[in-house]
Amino acid sequence: MRRAGVDIGGTKCLGVVIDGTGSVIEETRLPTPYGPDALLAVLEQLAGDLQPYDSFGVGAAGLVDRNGVWRAAPNVGGVAEFPIATELASRLGHPVGVDNDAACATLAEWQVGVAMGATDVVMVTLGTGIGGGFVVDDQLVRGANGFAGEPGHMVVDPNGPPCVCGRRGCWERFASGSGLTRLAREAATGGRLVRVVALAGDAEAVRGEHVEWAAREGDRGALAVVDEWAWWVALGLVNLTNLLDPDVLVMGGGLAGAADLVLAPVRHHFARLLYAPTQRPHPRIEMAALGERSAAIGAALLG
Amino acid sequence: MRRAGVDIGGTKCLGVVIDGTGSVIEETRLPTPYGPDALLAVLEQLAGDLQPYDSFGVGAAGLVDRNGVWRAAPNVGGVAEFPIATELASRLGHPVGVDNDAACATLAEWQVGVAMGATDVVMVTLGTGIGGGFVVDDQLVRGANGFAGEPGHMVVDPNGPPCVCGRRGCWERFASGSGLTRLAREAATGGRLVRVVALAGDAEAVRGEHVEWAAREGDRGALAVVDEWAWWVALGLVNLTNLLDPDVLVMGGGLAGAADLVLAPVRHHFARLLYAPTQRPHPRIEMAALGERSAAIGAALLG
Repeated sequence: MRRAGVDIGGTKCLGVVIDGTGSVIEETRLPTPYGPDALLAVLEQLAGDLQPYDSFGVGAAGLVDRNGVWRAAPNVGGVAEFPIATELASRLGHPVGVDNDAACATLAEWQVGVAMGATDVVMVTLGTGIGGGFVVDDQLVRGANGFAGEPGHMVVDPNGPPCVCGRRGCWERFASGSGLTRLAREAATGGRLVRVVALAGDAEAVRGEHVEWAAREGDRGALAVVDEWAWWVALGLVNLTNLLDPDVLVMGGGLAGAADLVLAPVRHHFARLLYAPTQRPHPRIEMAALGERSAAIGAALLG
Repeated sequence: MRRAGVDIGGTKCLGVVIDGTGSVIEETRLPTPYGPDALLAVLEQLAGDLQPYDSFGVGAAGLVDRNGVWRAAPNVGGVAEFPIATELASRLGHPVGVDNDAACATLAEWQVGVAMGATDVVMVTLGTGIGGGFVVDDQLVRGANGFAGEPGHMVVDPNGPPCVCGRRGCWERFASGSGLTRLAREAATGGRLVRVVALAGDAEAVRGEHVEWAAREGDRGALAVVDEWAWWVALGLVNLTNLLDPDVLVMGGGLAGAADLVLAPVRHHFARLLYAPTQRPHPRIEMAALGERSAAIGAALLG
């Protein structure tokens, strides 16, 4: 059994072939081009590179509906209302499964990653924004139109900072990688992050990784920012737990590399914020296991 | 086909028998007694009154786990860690389905009420607090432990008013019936609700129904409070839509009687607050159709 999957991201298309156990046995990548036609050509080339395979799936960043139409792609140039599933199937001459990249990543972590064996999973990908995916009672949640799983735009503070979506205080303004940067710059401007600012050059240049480096050195200001950020992560995870009662919560995305710094404070705040904490088993909170290949692996599992 | 169901509420136990189409053909009620033994006796009596039936289900207010153990019951005296499904089955001599009352109400509205035919449903019951239930891809969501569906304790403003759960700014502090009372008393204390205060006697006595009466007379202050309250309702419904992408949102609970006042402003704010509103079909927003019998009807559908 060789299943092929491609993850179409903002900068690159990553293709993999997995075996029956979910292990990656082939891997290839090409830059993401502009527009649907160029994209179909790149996907066709990747499919050729990955042959032979028994099935083929695609994960795409943005809104993908239940018919495999890629409705909107904030990070992929020139794509809107693109019927990628049917057009690619007609080019390749076989069916193609298509879903949102975060849904694919969730499928991968659930079926062959850190959430294996769980019946109910909440995955959040903490990157520039926050994506996500849910498994409910052993099924990936798609929603009536295929748009389920946008936890990043859950409003958690209507008086909070403005969001790209036009509203205020979406969870991703606090708990994403850019949320960490925002919290850090506020603290830096307030004079509370001397070491972090020294690493960054100046307060306005502070980014998440400067906080990470300083926190690893034991810098108190940096650790306080990580703790504040972890509180916001935990708040959103608690909201999702009240709604969906998962047995495992998975954190992925760019911040998965900082597991050693992040996991303990998120777990700490989660346990304190959970509703009715003494009357229920607490879900496990884990970092994603499959790294940047999770969406491509999940795309292969779709096929 | 005669299916029996009982809804155990804080003050009364309501029993119904429904026919194959979901219509109520028998109805009976008894006061909710204190403690598990008295409760079993009352349920046995109701079962006798409702006979003959082909199946029997129970909806219970509070946390009910997947094994039919009623773990916690904030509004029903003397109940905790009560294995109601097995104990009642042994008394009655047949299997008994048990679930949370809001999950039962959701099941009823989905299968025989206003959300018939939908694949993905979000129901919220706006009463003293906010309960809820979800249908995802034609299945009632229970969660890993049976505790899914607590939207009332989704934090929407960490600096908001304290909640009974020990945290701040839970959605039900704003969007429940008591949320409406709280918003109205704030406005009354601020001198903005002369007519409402006149109806109530004084500002501290203002309740939701005084706002409702004044709003029906066209009082501007009252209508402004309803509008503010509807904004909070819509905010939570938008959060739930980002997560679950339902085709129908159902509002039930005590406020279902005020549909004429409530529905238009909730729909208005929802359309303005929805994430990516131009790129997706909007879910229908409806008032529950089955009224105070919805949980009993849903309990019957469980059986």
